[in-house]
Amino acid sequence: MSSMWGKNVKISIFGGSHTEAIGVTIDGLPAGERIDFEEIKAQMARRAPGSDSTATKRKEDDLPKILSGVNSEGVLTGAPISAIILNSNQKSKDYDELRVKPRPGHADFTAQVKYSGNNDIRGGGHFSGRLTAPLVFAGAVCRQILERKGIYIGSHVYSIGKIADEPFDLVNIKKEKLCKLSTQYFPVNSALKRNEMRAEVERIAAQHDSVGGMVECAIIGLPVGLGEPMFDGVENKISSIIFGIPAVKGIEFGAGFSVADKLGSENNDEFYYNEDGEVKTYTNNSGGILGGISNGMPIVFKVAIKPTPSIAKKQNTINFAEGKNDILEIVGRHDPCIVPRAAPVVEAAAAVAMLDLIYERN
Amino acid sequence: MSSMWGKNVKISIFGGSHTEAIGVTIDGLPAGERIDFEEIKAQMARRAPGSDSTATKRKEDDLPKILSGVNSEGVLTGAPISAIILNSNQKSKDYDELRVKPRPGHADFTAQVKYSGNNDIRGGGHFSGRLTAPLVFAGAVCRQILERKGIYIGSHVYSIGKIADEPFDLVNIKKEKLCKLSTQYFPVNSALKRNEMRAEVERIAAQHDSVGGMVECAIIGLPVGLGEPMFDGVENKISSIIFGIPAVKGIEFGAGFSVADKLGSENNDEFYYNEDGEVKTYTNNSGGILGGISNGMPIVFKVAIKPTPSIAKKQNTINFAEGKNDILEIVGRHDPCIVPRAAPVVEAAAAVAMLDLIYERN
Amino acid sequence: MSSMWGKNVKISIFGGSHTEAIGVTIDGLPAGERIDFEEIKAQMARRAPGSDSTATKRKEDDLPKILSGVNSEGVLTGAPISAIILNSNQKSKDYDELRVKPRPGHADFTAQVKYSGNNDIRGGGHFSGRLTAPLVFAGAVCRQILERKGIYIGSHVYSIGKIADEPFDLVNIKKEKLCKLSTQYFPVNSALKRNEMRAEVERIAAQHDSVGGMVECAIIGLPVGLGEPMFDGVENKISSIIFGIPAVKGIEFGAGFSVADKLGSENNDEFYYNEDGEVKTYTNNSGGILGGISNGMPIVFKVAIKPTPSIAKKQNTINFAEGKNDILEIVGRHDPCIVPRAAPVVEAAAAVAMLDLIYERN
Amino acid sequence: MSSMWGKNVKISIFGGSHTEAIGVTIDGLPAGERIDFEEIKAQMARRAPGSDSTATKRKEDDLPKILSGVNSEGVLTGAPISAIILNSNQKSKDYDELRVKPRPGHADFTAQVKYSGNNDIRGGGHFSGRLTAPLVFAGAVCRQILERKGIYIGSHVYSIGKIADEPFDLVNIKKEKLCKLSTQYFPVNSALKRNEMRAEVERIAAQHDSVGGMVECAIIGLPVGLGEPMFDGVENKISSIIFGIPAVKGIEFGAGFSVADKLGSENNDEFYYNEDGEVKTYTNNSGGILGGISNGMPIVFKVAIKPTPSIAKKQNTINFAEGKNDILEIVGRHDPCIVPRAAPVVEAAAAVAMLDLIYERN
Repeated sequence: MSSMWGKNVKISIFGGSHTEAIGVTIDGLPAGERIDFEEIKAQMARRAPGSDSTATKRKEDDLPKILSGVNSEGVLTGAPISAIILNSNQKSKDYDELRVKPRPGHADFTAQVKYSGNNDIRGGGHFSGRLTAPLVFAGAVCRQILERKGIYIGSHVYSIGKIADEPFDLVNIKKEKLCKLSTQYFPVNSALKRNEMRAEVERIAAQHDSVGGMVECAIIGLPVGLGEPMFDGVENKISSIIFGIPAVKGIEFGAGFSVADKLGSENNDEFYYNEDGEVKTYTNNSGGILGGISNGMPIVFKVAIKPTPSIAKKQNTINFAEGKNDILEIVGRHDPCIVPRAAPVVEAAAAVAMLDLIYERN
Repeated sequence: MSSMWGKNVKISIFGGSHTEAIGVTIDGLPAGERIDFEEIKAQMARRAPGSDSTATKRKEDDLPKILSGVNSEGVLTGAPISAIILNSNQKSKDYDELRVKPRPGHADFTAQVKYSGNNDIRGGGHFSGRLTAPLVFAGAVCRQILERKGIYIGSHVYSIGKIADEPFDLVNIKKEKLCKLSTQYFPVNSALKRNEMRAEVERIAAQHDSVGGMVECAIIGLPVGLGEPMFDGVENKISSIIFGIPAVKGIEFGAGFSVADKLGSENNDEFYYNEDGEVKTYTNNSGGILGGISNGMPIVFKVAIKPTPSIAKKQNTINFAEGKNDILEIVGRHDPCIVPRAAPVVEAAAAVAMLDLIYERN
Repeated sequence: MSSMWGKNVKISIFGGSHTEAIGVTIDGLPAGERIDFEEIKAQMARRAPGSDSTATKRKEDDLPKILSGVNSEGVLTGAPISAIILNSNQKSKDYDELRVKPRPGHADFTAQVKYSGNNDIRGGGHFSGRLTAPLVFAGAVCRQILERKGIYIGSHVYSIGKIADEPFDLVNIKKEKLCKLSTQYFPVNSALKRNEMRAEVERIAAQHDSVGGMVECAIIGLPVGLGEPMFDGVENKISSIIFGIPAVKGIEFGAGFSVADKLGSENNDEFYYNEDGEVKTYTNNSGGILGGISNGMPIVFKVAIKPTPSIAKKQNTINFAEGKNDILEIVGRHDPCIVPRAAPVVEAAAAVAMLDLIYERN
Repeated sequence: MSSMWGKNVKISIFGGSHTEAIGVTIDGLPAGERIDFEEIKAQMARRAPGSDSTATKRKEDDLPKILSGVNSEGVLTGAPISAIILNSNQKSKDYDELRVKPRPGHADFTAQVKYSGNNDIRGGGHFSGRLTAPLVFAGAVCRQILERKGIYIGSHVYSIGKIADEPFDLVNIKKEKLCKLSTQYFPVNSALKRNEMRAEVERIAAQHDSVGGMVECAIIGLPVGLGEPMFDGVENKISSIIFGIPAVKGIEFGAGFSVADKLGSENNDEFYYNEDGEVKTYTNNSGGILGGISNGMPIVFKVAIKPTPSIAKKQNTINFAEGKNDILEIVGRHDPCIVPRAAPVVEAAAAVAMLDLIYERN
């Protein structure tokens, strides 16, 4: 396992779906910053299940308890912040079947081999999407510090299945938009599209199936010059933490994969001085990153989220105990689509990555 | 700058396009392995310019000189390997224009701001694609060690512009195919498609433009269980080094972004026992990675490469010296398409990442 | 702050003297190892205050609560272990005086400047010796895994003030001795000397003063070849974690500082084959480490522990609030000598360092 | 091997005594700093052999060649600096004897086991003291940047054998003294004592023996607040790099091991406001470090250097080839005392460590 991440801002995530608690320690934050606990709770509520038809009906009371690092007035002391979330509402059902019949698309099989069958299988153990709750906590803290530096992060559900939201205008993303998106459950640019997406998820859920999607995330307000090429550039940094989110299978920056069939003359973002004398680009195919370094345009990236592997349909799998092929039929409460809940997690990961980058000598 | 990468196998890359030399130090390799210098040269030749109509005509004699870490019989001593490549054939032309007029799509602007104008602008300095030569050196060493463990890496030019090669069959990638691809300049599955791609690049080059593309890379022979979730999983590890390659704007594993409009029942790779009693999956949408851990299927990922930003067409840019908008017309020898040359670089990065992962306690 | 340590076995320590809880997360431990909770408690009891006349009379119930990483049968799951210890028995006395009048020899002053006065001053905050409890927890886990590999760690109070225990015989340290020492509170080679030391501490305590001392620690059973020179050698690794223990001001390996006035012919440890055909040295001035690498002899190092800075005597200090020199008179319960309690902490740090080293590719 | 060190300023050292070249890459230095090459050469000359009766008569032309990272005017570009020193004047004598008969006190034995006999035995390979030349290069660069920040580093030969130099006055170390010491070969506070030491070394050399000693190093001008407790405190940081210097067997800060028999009332450094309103301490037993954090007093530490293991006297050792005990008689040119040459190396390591610490977010 490697559940620690970061260079200047370091996080250490612990716990499993059915352990006593899950939590996170954050090291390297600046003393003196006041942290609003309500904002943390608001971010965690965006990730919590149970609040939308697209999500599992399982209720989780994701109320974090801060153990250290924040004084009684909510001010950071400079020491590591640690917070835990007690696990509750755990169905003590029988996980024995999953031990012998690994779920297709899930880490059951690889974890069982890697950890010689000692891994905690209950609820996915350390591989549970529940482990994103501590990450959201960490991001919610970092985000508050970033905002005081004029840096804002927001995301929207770019697509679910074949239904696409209105994309960001890469050259012009307003603080107000990001602030609004980053308070929404199921954030979208078009409320209409959200309705369509929700209906689509409900339709698919009714078929005992699940569906994937994409999250588009933007960061504005970064100064020019952040990122340490070659291997700690903005893209390396963001991707190294984003792939820590379960179900992410791809990431692209700016025009992303569409650069592959572009001409240089199309893809190059031409520079100009804006009316404030700042250097800007007419387009933003680079996603705000040139040579691994922020160029003052919005940082924009998209993340591909696979459909929830736990589906109620019958599936072929193996049976470890009997050494033969078998059939698996999963019961229980699962999200038919985790993309809306993934949006705040992506934002949180981006916030941690950005604060880490900002604390490089610059 | 952060030109060092790795945990168990560490690389440190240095140099710039027009400095005395470029090079790499590799730390953490096992003593006793015999390294074939001809194989290293062969890999470096695949990356070298001058050998194809799609590449710059600039000749580079990429012959590495090993300074340390290998004994007279080509055997690793256990000490860090260091190798340098002397820079030669440098056009001592005037780079003053690029100092004041940053090239769109290039790191000229961001580097100039970040390094307060002290960055080496000649030939792109440390941001030059030439810095991938030491990475290919490192990969060529690591690859030889991997092959003795039965692990093979190869890639092909998945697409250039709108012309696509035959993709890999994700569930069935043979060692022989990878060995063949990994010795080719401009590796493809379909020679016919290579001809089409080459013609397309020549057509675009004639227009003084450039074009992007994609590289698809496969790794076979990995045992089940490699990768350290959450933050040192196979995807995190590979992406953190791949984004160190200039011009990469996206990465996706297995079915990648196409998972976004898949159902769980489509995307889940069902398990079965093959005739040798090994656990396999019927499909490989996961790209061989579940929960960040290798599952014994081929690891497959695709990388988006943007079109070379240096094009001969007139482009809008700014003029730092005069503080006004201006026009840039780049002269000199540039690749109209770097995708064929990027393929061995992607393989090299994958080789370094895989050897680093393998040396985790497992 | 940098409260995380390690490469292969990573620990993250959190909490402060008067926060809700203190704790530790340990990442990188092998799945499948059974951990004996009683042994952990025994190690923590050795560090706990209240059990000896040399220590503070303050009682702490250092019972750790494991949050994750261990299953119901005490077996490691492969996921990070996290454990917390609730803080209790905290005197809610007024720490306002320490805020304005920093204690000589303590981190009050430096922490206040570094953290701009936001640091938790209560009980020393994150600088409290109490933070060594999570380190002992981590060491107690690592030690059990090491012992199954035949590696044993023990220490003794080498000296308190001018009273010295019998030193280790560097070439011949038996497993039985280390096992005995590592279960003792106030471990010594000579019980007689312990009595003398205790009397000396009581004498000094009666004068409202404190006293320093040394701990000598030994590690046996390491294979030849551990340690990664130049910068992750055994000495670098051990010292980098040992100086994380408050009050440590020096470390020396083998003959240590006495090498400074030795001749080469005296200091060189001559090799010979023992009767089992193993390579040994007649002397062990190297402390079992040559070129940063273990040589099969006992690893032995000594650590200097300064006298507890919190003493009841009147001391000169400054007054931040009034910007003038002032007098401080500390009240409260403090250890007149922390050396006996430091011994298990030194062993714990050594255990974490050794397990980290062992998981290098070897 | 782990020949890379650092977090914010990273160094990567490569080469061996008899490889083509040795060298270093330094990453993370600030663009725009002008580096004086003459000062680098002066520092390297302090370490070079051949210039004093206490050192080997072997001449080395330690002239570094900068490959990258510095422009034609000596200004850092922001890209990694890489420098190499070609190896020359290598006696191609037969090292076969050392392969089978490891030198007592040297890494021959441990390296041979660790690297399965593939390690470069010629001249000690990567374990050669010659590898400190690249470290001195790195330190000489970092030192220049530190001095512009008002931070000065110097050291003296504290003792050789039983002959001791005048120690530093821990509370009052002047910039002028450090500047003078840091340009001397064989730096001492008392020239008289240098003469005694030199005579002593000559006496011992005549007996075909060697002798150890101590180096005392001071750093002044650091702001209050540097160092990241618990595990990246000033002591952890310095010791982790200092133990990368061959022959170092101990390190102590401030009063060091003498704290062990001090009372708290003796050891505590009482605070006061000096006439400039700065907080100072009357004594400096802490060596300028409280809780791992700099307190504005001089940072002072001492390092124990063992006697050169290569001595001409007959020694007992083993014979690997014959599997029996044997006698070794080393011929060749060796330093009878490396302490004078170690002083600039200790300063260099301190300089790298300090610059690394300074670039923490502060």
